Amino acid sequence: MAFEFKAVRRVEFSDTDMAGIVHYSNFFRYMETAEHGFVRSLGYSVVMDHFEPPVGWPRVQASCEYRQPLRFEDEVEIHLLVSEKKSKSLSYAFRFRKLNASPVIEVARGSLTVVCVTKQADGKMVAAHIPKAFADKIEVAPAELLA
Amino acid sequence: MAFEFKAVRRVEFSDTDMAGIVHYSNFFRYMETAEHGFVRSLGYSVVMDHFEPPVGWPRVQASCEYRQPLRFEDEVEIHLLVSEKKSKSLSYAFRFRKLNASPVIEVARGSLTVVCVTKQADGKMVAAHIPKAFADKIEVAPAELLA
Amino acid sequence: MAFEFKAVRRVEFSDTDMAGIVHYSNFFRYMETAEHGFVRSLGYSVVMDHFEPPVGWPRVQASCEYRQPLRFEDEVEIHLLVSEKKSKSLSYAFRFRKLNASPVIEVARGSLTVVCVTKQADGKMVAAHIPKAFADKIEVAPAELLA
Amino acid sequence: MAFEFKAVRRVEFSDTDMAGIVHYSNFFRYMETAEHGFVRSLGYSVVMDHFEPPVGWPRVQASCEYRQPLRFEDEVEIHLLVSEKKSKSLSYAFRFRKLNASPVIEVARGSLTVVCVTKQADGKMVAAHIPKAFADKIEVAPAELLA
Repeated sequence: MAFEFKAVRRVEFSDTDMAGIVHYSNFFRYMETAEHGFVRSLGYSVVMDHFEPPVGWPRVQASCEYRQPLRFEDEVEIHLLVSEKKSKSLSYAFRFRKLNASPVIEVARGSLTVVCVTKQADGKMVAAHIPKAFADKIEVAPAELLA
Repeated sequence: MAFEFKAVRRVEFSDTDMAGIVHYSNFFRYMETAEHGFVRSLGYSVVMDHFEPPVGWPRVQASCEYRQPLRFEDEVEIHLLVSEKKSKSLSYAFRFRKLNASPVIEVARGSLTVVCVTKQADGKMVAAHIPKAFADKIEVAPAELLA
Repeated sequence: MAFEFKAVRRVEFSDTDMAGIVHYSNFFRYMETAEHGFVRSLGYSVVMDHFEPPVGWPRVQASCEYRQPLRFEDEVEIHLLVSEKKSKSLSYAFRFRKLNASPVIEVARGSLTVVCVTKQADGKMVAAHIPKAFADKIEVAPAELLA
Repeated sequence: MAFEFKAVRRVEFSDTDMAGIVHYSNFFRYMETAEHGFVRSLGYSVVMDHFEPPVGWPRVQASCEYRQPLRFEDEVEIHLLVSEKKSKSLSYAFRFRKLNASPVIEVARGSLTVVCVTKQADGKMVAAHIPKAFADKIEVAPAELLA
């Protein structure tokens, strides 16, 4: 059972804004990189069309606390931790660390809650149970890591 | 004294993702549209280079709750409300409403806290008092609007 | 018959990069704003699911020449001109003008070729005739405007 | 002397649009990934503040031809080739290949021309000679690779 994943990105020029730092909206793109890497690490793609019925993962909540800026060519580790596991939703906590700093510093923290949904016959999305084969691979991270 | 601002955007093709809806990170770009429109409505630009010393507005916290998706060509109103005013920071609440729905529906809520900073001689950013001329134009929204 | 459309945008903070100017990739997003506004001005949406068969408009070519930078809060007019009309494709020329300059200056020129496609039974996209009702509303711009 | 560089990216969810493919503007972000990787491979950063005078690299021309779409989680190789080297500008050609296809297929071709500029005392940007130490490391790719 897995409860964490670490993705590493190098900050791109197009991620920055005129203040010379990573635009705050891009931390949410970075979280998604880690989320999708986590899902891949379990042998799946977040596009779960092969399940019967197919399921998707819309977001219901996202947040970020910014402590230090990230700049062009910084190497950032996005550490995903499973913070909650329910029958129809998953919550993740994120720690952003700047690796090209000595010592490594935490620059931001984030959270994300995604709901497992499926499409009804009328096209409407409704919450659905997380497919068992996928859910069985996931557990909540130890409390000390989430503190 | 002002406590709110409404911006309207039409969802662009490049705002959507393969799920056919606005990518969740773009709600944070939309919030910024309303924030910067609010600042302009007070006669300023968020790039406050003309103050002595010049100040900037990095984000320290941002969040969003998603209730309904937005789709291509939807008209979305981003309603900014000042939720907190401190000597060195401002917090905003956001209501996202889909205008091309009957009745109009709230599709998301957001929050954003920005800190007024200035650059020290050594290049380091430090929190600074909000310039008085700007601060004097801003007040917190009535509690019933923030509920 | 229509051969042009003008869209106006205000440059957003998130459109800029650390060089303090609009990131060059965003000129292509701006072109699309004008293209989709043009299609709407003819009474259609670029998402043409109501035609039988439904058609889409993938890009086969795009280019841009940059002459002057655009900066935060600049007002930019994106002037679309139909430069070529074939049975299965359309080409557009774009003129970017900075409106908050005196005199107004042209800051960039672009081009875009889009192909009308439909999905075969096997899921493959193939070029298709532009739906007549839509094509009948479009003509090529006068040569002097395209010079 | 170097004339090429290969960058590899995995297509991210936020790179896609509602057509289910990578938005056409993102190919220009991908080109920049390869350009900046090329510069790093020569021991430099594209942010050349350490040169006297400091230089920057605004774009004057960019183009892309799209042959096949890229989709979520595709692995794309962006192959940069130096196509022209002048005293004050560089031109690059790009080949986009989808690596997770058998055989590997070329999905797009691009081009980019960047000019070396420096800031005058009055703040205006003017074209400048490419710093010799950097220029000396670069040569034009063999004609057969550029065909």
